Amino acid sequence: MAELTESVSRLIEELTKLPGIGRKSAERITYHLLRVSREEALALSEAIRTVKENVRHCTICYNLAEDELCSICRDASRDRSLLCVVEQPRDLIAIEQTGLYRGLYHVLLGRLSPLDGVTPDQLTISDLVRRVKEGGIREVIMATNPTVEGDGTCLYISNQLADLDVTITRLARGITPGSVIEFANPEVLADAFAGRRRL
Amino acid sequence: MAELTESVSRLIEELTKLPGIGRKSAERITYHLLRVSREEALALSEAIRTVKENVRHCTICYNLAEDELCSICRDASRDRSLLCVVEQPRDLIAIEQTGLYRGLYHVLLGRLSPLDGVTPDQLTISDLVRRVKEGGIREVIMATNPTVEGDGTCLYISNQLADLDVTITRLARGITPGSVIEFANPEVLADAFAGRRRL
Repeated sequence: MAELTESVSRLIEELTKLPGIGRKSAERITYHLLRVSREEALALSEAIRTVKENVRHCTICYNLAEDELCSICRDASRDRSLLCVVEQPRDLIAIEQTGLYRGLYHVLLGRLSPLDGVTPDQLTISDLVRRVKEGGIREVIMATNPTVEGDGTCLYISNQLADLDVTITRLARGITPGSVIEFANPEVLADAFAGRRRL
Repeated sequence: MAELTESVSRLIEELTKLPGIGRKSAERITYHLLRVSREEALALSEAIRTVKENVRHCTICYNLAEDELCSICRDASRDRSLLCVVEQPRDLIAIEQTGLYRGLYHVLLGRLSPLDGVTPDQLTISDLVRRVKEGGIREVIMATNPTVEGDGTCLYISNQLADLDVTITRLARGITPGSVIEFANPEVLADAFAGRRRL
């Protein structure tokens, strides 16, 4: 039985640990890697190793970085009076891709989730408070996810910053462009009503 | 723009080359690898490298092997008078998992496909003919896929072996257990009628 060689079984097993990869996908990927050139397979192996060896968190904002500071914190042209707070580096990337925001960031590396045992000390909240206390920041824009946990994290942080001389704002929420009101969630409509503006 | 670090971009790019992995999946897997322990990420990197370094084809049957011979060709308890011809190692694994077949295999490493430029000399057909010519094999069981190309490959090989003293058989085809006749393809029904047996 099981005429997979030991290395093949091990690769399939390692691949099934990845998110969204089941047994069948892992087998397909393994056969693919067996078929492609040695160079192509090793390029993937190396890319994984390199990411683990080179990528760390920016010592100021906790964005992904290959040096002590990330490319945004190093960029002298960014507006240092604006600070956008996000949960994860991927949220930062989504915002950067709009090209609209020119301030700095602070990456929390998660969101508060008492049920999963994620408490404030496991996030980078104390560093955020220190950055704001050090002065120079005019506005903190909360861009945590519009979920129960994201909103809870936003509320906790705004309480922490309440006594400091800084404006705290939150991303607008409401109906999304291209959506239809008929199928909008009650929560979405409630947000849209609460945030309505004069035309 | 593009606040991904260079290593992160490269890993995402390498991952999108895998079958069934799009841009979004590649990003998810990358963030996963950034988050897990160094050991876990490097275990995957190593597993890919090891497969490419250790796994080769059995010099007799072209099954996957880590030595000169695969575990089946090395197994003295297998029936050496039976030879089952499959397209790929994964077909062999599926057959082994039934536990019903105790003979040897021959892996073609593909199927004839003139449209994709796959000609007989790119498969292991000449080695198969040589194995049969060397004698000792009583029956060759064709287990290529029941597709136009698989059937064409089966026909080509049976012509190559026609003058040799060996029985050539093909896996039975017909309606599959658990299916309903109402929804069976015409091709399936035609096969089922042609292969009908006395009760």
